[in-house]
Amino acid sequence: MKIYFAGSIRGGREYVELYQKIITYLKKFGTVLTEHVADRGLSKFGENIENDISIHTRDMEWLYLSNVLVAEVTTPSLGVGYEIGRAIENNKPVLCLYKQGSNYKLSAMIAGCENLTLNEYSNIEQVQNYIDDFLNGIQ
Amino acid sequence: MKIYFAGSIRGGREYVELYQKIITYLKKFGTVLTEHVADRGLSKFGENIENDISIHTRDMEWLYLSNVLVAEVTTPSLGVGYEIGRAIENNKPVLCLYKQGSNYKLSAMIAGCENLTLNEYSNIEQVQNYIDDFLNGIQ
Repeated sequence: MKIYFAGSIRGGREYVELYQKIITYLKKFGTVLTEHVADRGLSKFGENIENDISIHTRDMEWLYLSNVLVAEVTTPSLGVGYEIGRAIENNKPVLCLYKQGSNYKLSAMIAGCENLTLNEYSNIEQVQNYIDDFLNGIQ
Repeated sequence: MKIYFAGSIRGGREYVELYQKIITYLKKFGTVLTEHVADRGLSKFGENIENDISIHTRDMEWLYLSNVLVAEVTTPSLGVGYEIGRAIENNKPVLCLYKQGSNYKLSAMIAGCENLTLNEYSNIEQVQNYIDDFLNGIQ
């Protein structure tokens, strides 16, 4: 299984350690194409080695290749929203994970979308259970 | 012309006055379907009168109806990113407006997307000129 993980980069890196734990867990199920999203060396200024057009082209290739998209949606992020929108239009299964008690109320475009699975969590064990349920359900 | 204007709601309302000016200007060209985005009474907690599924359904109907999407992308926002992603997949012309000197570097998913027009501005007059160029070009 090819998994596209989406997490905030330029929108803010507050949850990067959580992204790392999610990706580690997702690897039990297959290949995570976007492993750099959890790179602690990657600041909110984003990747330096590539220009934005190359990043966009690469990420869209990965998104089209992937069997499923898993997004951490607690931090508002244009890129994560964009990837979810394109995944939905391409009928990819989408799992969104949102941390309870965030300062941000989740967008109605995510919370109100019936074509994705949304789970609210308060710890990593819950995240792992939600991933189990979601990925076992589509395998 | 039917215009879908996208701006941050739950991602933060810092630029709501600017959204208002943009919508006022867009009305010269046609109908702005999403006028509530510039409502100063609308806080970052979003609309109260409707549930999230109704909001999503209504907004997606508007997006499919619209001839063009104009997005203010300075504030990171899942909803704005999602709407841009869905508009691109539906071959809608998309204009993104980004304020120079923002604390946030613009997402590579927007800055690197060759299927949209991105303009950086520093004042409302520039915004108006960019809107003129863009909307006159597709009429």
